[in-house]
Amino acid sequence: MYRGNFEVEDYIVERSALRHADVDGNVISLSEAEGRAPRLELTVSETALHFRSLDETINRFWIRIHADNDEHVWGGGEQMSYFDMRGRRFPLWTSEPGVGRDKTSEITFKSDLKDKAGGDYYNTNYPQPTYISSARYALHVETTAYSVFDFRRKTFHEIETWAVPERIELFAAPNFVELVEALSLRFGRQPELPDWVYKGAIIGLKDGVNSFERLEKMRNAGVQVSGLWCEDWVGLRQTSFGSRLFWDWQANDERYPDLRERIAELNGEGIRFLGYVNPYLCVDGSLFPEAEAAGYFAKDQLGRTAIVDFGEFDCGVVDFTNRQAADWFAEEVIGRRMLDFGLTGWMADFGEYLPIDVELSNGIDAKLMHNAWPTLWAEVNAKAIASRGKTGEALFFMRAGFTGVQKHCPLLWGGDQSVDFSRHDGLVTVMCAALSSGVLGNAYHHSDIGGYTSLFGNVRTPELLMRWAEMAAFTPVMRSHEGNRPRDNIQIDQDPEVLDHFARMTRIYVHLAPYLKTLSKEAAARGLPVQRPLFLHHEHDPKTYAIQDAYLYGSELLVAPVWHAAQEVRSVYLPGGADWVHVWSGVEYTGGEEVTVASPIGCPPVFYRSDAAFAETFKALKGM
Amino acid sequence: MYRGNFEVEDYIVERSALRHADVDGNVISLSEAEGRAPRLELTVSETALHFRSLDETINRFWIRIHADNDEHVWGGGEQMSYFDMRGRRFPLWTSEPGVGRDKTSEITFKSDLKDKAGGDYYNTNYPQPTYISSARYALHVETTAYSVFDFRRKTFHEIETWAVPERIELFAAPNFVELVEALSLRFGRQPELPDWVYKGAIIGLKDGVNSFERLEKMRNAGVQVSGLWCEDWVGLRQTSFGSRLFWDWQANDERYPDLRERIAELNGEGIRFLGYVNPYLCVDGSLFPEAEAAGYFAKDQLGRTAIVDFGEFDCGVVDFTNRQAADWFAEEVIGRRMLDFGLTGWMADFGEYLPIDVELSNGIDAKLMHNAWPTLWAEVNAKAIASRGKTGEALFFMRAGFTGVQKHCPLLWGGDQSVDFSRHDGLVTVMCAALSSGVLGNAYHHSDIGGYTSLFGNVRTPELLMRWAEMAAFTPVMRSHEGNRPRDNIQIDQDPEVLDHFARMTRIYVHLAPYLKTLSKEAAARGLPVQRPLFLHHEHDPKTYAIQDAYLYGSELLVAPVWHAAQEVRSVYLPGGADWVHVWSGVEYTGGEEVTVASPIGCPPVFYRSDAAFAETFKALKGM
Repeated sequence: MYRGNFEVEDYIVERSALRHADVDGNVISLSEAEGRAPRLELTVSETALHFRSLDETINRFWIRIHADNDEHVWGGGEQMSYFDMRGRRFPLWTSEPGVGRDKTSEITFKSDLKDKAGGDYYNTNYPQPTYISSARYALHVETTAYSVFDFRRKTFHEIETWAVPERIELFAAPNFVELVEALSLRFGRQPELPDWVYKGAIIGLKDGVNSFERLEKMRNAGVQVSGLWCEDWVGLRQTSFGSRLFWDWQANDERYPDLRERIAELNGEGIRFLGYVNPYLCVDGSLFPEAEAAGYFAKDQLGRTAIVDFGEFDCGVVDFTNRQAADWFAEEVIGRRMLDFGLTGWMADFGEYLPIDVELSNGIDAKLMHNAWPTLWAEVNAKAIASRGKTGEALFFMRAGFTGVQKHCPLLWGGDQSVDFSRHDGLVTVMCAALSSGVLGNAYHHSDIGGYTSLFGNVRTPELLMRWAEMAAFTPVMRSHEGNRPRDNIQIDQDPEVLDHFARMTRIYVHLAPYLKTLSKEAAARGLPVQRPLFLHHEHDPKTYAIQDAYLYGSELLVAPVWHAAQEVRSVYLPGGADWVHVWSGVEYTGGEEVTVASPIGCPPVFYRSDAAFAETFKALKGM
Repeated sequence: MYRGNFEVEDYIVERSALRHADVDGNVISLSEAEGRAPRLELTVSETALHFRSLDETINRFWIRIHADNDEHVWGGGEQMSYFDMRGRRFPLWTSEPGVGRDKTSEITFKSDLKDKAGGDYYNTNYPQPTYISSARYALHVETTAYSVFDFRRKTFHEIETWAVPERIELFAAPNFVELVEALSLRFGRQPELPDWVYKGAIIGLKDGVNSFERLEKMRNAGVQVSGLWCEDWVGLRQTSFGSRLFWDWQANDERYPDLRERIAELNGEGIRFLGYVNPYLCVDGSLFPEAEAAGYFAKDQLGRTAIVDFGEFDCGVVDFTNRQAADWFAEEVIGRRMLDFGLTGWMADFGEYLPIDVELSNGIDAKLMHNAWPTLWAEVNAKAIASRGKTGEALFFMRAGFTGVQKHCPLLWGGDQSVDFSRHDGLVTVMCAALSSGVLGNAYHHSDIGGYTSLFGNVRTPELLMRWAEMAAFTPVMRSHEGNRPRDNIQIDQDPEVLDHFARMTRIYVHLAPYLKTLSKEAAARGLPVQRPLFLHHEHDPKTYAIQDAYLYGSELLVAPVWHAAQEVRSVYLPGGADWVHVWSGVEYTGGEEVTVASPIGCPPVFYRSDAAFAETFKALKGM
């Protein structure tokens, strides 16, 4: 690991086929040949294959699943590059997602050189060893070990895990909707969105007290606002890389004087205040000594507090496998210093960085706990909120995830896209992320409007910012971000055209709120994601199976954001079995074909079903 | 394969440990466990382990060889990046060597993008599954299958072959010199250098008739010349990539009018003429129809002549596993059209490009013949020369190689370095190439003075050209090359300082000829390479084991070329057990320590043993 980026290499000493099976009821003992000692025991239950290793030297496991030549598979957690995973190999290991994520791009090349941070198509903050097959089944591997889904073969899928998994769970349903419902039941459903969110966008600013003025200016320009999100609420630290947050999770009076009062004022105007937190504590903060004295940190090989270098500052990792440590963080940090202080939400960052060489309180190898960490981190946040009775009201958002994060995390955020239109790290990847995580039971997804990562001279264009905003208007939550280099990149409030466009998009978002509310109820009740792949409601139209740059927003809207620069016209495949009305022109199309529509800035291709319950609401978009 | 660059990927289905051995005399049957069917038979002879597969499903083979923690290993064919291979993994597969050969360099990144041609540290035209260990043994794997030498483990070396090898040969000797002698006997020794070579440099020009004038100008400037090498003797073809040679191996009257007469004139002045040939025939040449009618080409899956695209022109591959085809090429092409025409030598290019999907006359899988190809190609050239009684007189040089090329190829050339000082593709790699191939029995090595590959704006500096020439003066053959883009790169005859320097270096080369002749006799008689690793004569000084940027030239000279830009001073380790005299200053040093000497252009660090038989010759260098 180097700052959340991993280089993974394996050396296969032996890989033995367990060809011989002795069957005793529902227990199957597997060995290399008749007469040889069984090495693996397989118990078949109604919904799963349970595995038990009979040989402690086994540390790798492979299994092949029958595949059809024309089968599609989706899932794997939150995938950024490929929604349909067939034909590729996906390591599943929570990590930084990479910059550029494309070994043929110069940005990735430079990021690899500088920080080993370029990444590749499979890197994600949120992997999950679960997939849905177009053969109408889903498969989940219950393990937190490093694992690989290999969908490159024509006749089988191969699953590899770096430990014998507990079990492989199987789900079958007559249709995709029921399959998604079943998975969301299995992994946990999120509550409905809080009512305050529907009031507009969450404005991300990290400009100290200036943030309030700038927010005011934006509101005056007609921007509908639900919250102000200031990640710098904890104060800053200056490093040679630029300003970093001060990782000691409490309000910083210097950067935000009288913050408690300011929050109350905002609340009075119907605007919530959101902050930032992550599971590390910097050694020079006030919380570190307290946590260290109590033994709450993960340890190094010598039993000392493990220190992780984040670039000119060191931190301890709170050991969430220690119940006391987790409870302390939930109560003392999130509970007292954030919720009680007045925060209604926050970015719960990181979760991907558990070093694999630390010693943990539960005694389990950190290599096995690494993937489990995001879910433990989500749970700490969720418990803190529950302790204040604010579940469904306070809103935190995470980029990291793993199996079970669904149960605790009320909102995913798509991580750190580059501020561009690139295929593997730009705007388009957010859709793939929403769809892949969505079918695994994460109902709510959103992203940094305008992207985040600006490196090597790659900066936002006004066009990008506008295209991103007009996609975000058709997602559960609109939230802006100044990016990693605010001064080098255009901000929403710096350009009248951009600001105007953004204000209009927030009005569209608010206008759609009644519809979104019904989707949110549906998510809470049935586990259906707000953003859905086209095939979810059109599974008899296989042309929809590979589409990842358009989505259904609920069942009634089809959104096909423009994700290329200077694209004034876009082609969109409209699923068969319905008629679709283009919202900006009112033109009606019969589904089952690709249509081309004008897509100037401000008019992303959006269609509604002609038979939509909310047809009048959608029709009114034309005049907005 | 894409134009000689390969992407190799494997999928291990099973890897079984054959733990159980049944011993019957010198025959050992190996199986997975007692009572199970033996899968591999191992016969132990005095010098080898012979393998026989008893299970036709076996298509991979691994074996571990005991290793000491501080062991060094050398060989692997002609390695460009690492002479001591310990700590790294070396796939052994003949291919293009790569451009930049360093995944962190921009040139490699761009070459990978453009042509998949960037390469890596292990890519080489001449791999060979043979190594010498500092534990005073050598090991050779007799197979032409793709193989890998993995020297990354502390306690063992691992050898992987993609077929059960015929045998593993073992060599032991009390010292390194005898080990190298034994290997050279095993793989075949080269004849002495032809006498004409000692007269000076072989001048590479590809400028049509202008070449003769330019040669004259160089001679007038004091350049000592042994040969004129014009690879464009066959004429040119214009493509969008620039000028390419016309691959129909005979003199082109348009580009070189009256060539036969010009060659005779040159010969009269003691200068030989050299050309170029490779094992392909272009479809629009005169030889193609003849070879096709006779069925001399490798076939595709449908039994038709396999056509290989070389970038806007197509070629057939002469099938050297067909005895008639090989004989035809040797007699009709090399014999009649080259030797009989008056050529005394040529670059025998390629050998690495046998496509792995062709059908060959001998019925063996092209994947197994791919590595064998360079040796077959060398044999065709050697036979042609032998048929004219010109062995040891006509001189061809190859970059491609494999086991056994030693027997046929009289001179290696280091392939296509970039025109720079880069660590993995510049001047320094030529030394590594000479040393690694040298200890495996290739006595003669040389390189393109000034490098060859100029891409993406990377061009020669006068300094590079001069540094390269002053290294080449201390190698068996001096040969210049205009490079792949002659017009964009400085040429020797374009700059008075460079020309002067070059002329002086050719005089130094000629001055050393009597010494070189003794080394050549030693090579022919004992198999010792002209360029030798320091440890070959100083094996009790382990500090010499990892040195790859200096070499012994015979046993009496130590050459440490400057391989960085603007390096006016260089440090050199002088082996213990001898006193060394710095040729340019006359200062004497006691071996066993690192010394630092001035190294301005024209004075590369060179030392001679104070007790050298040729001490007077070396002493005289000071005044040259």
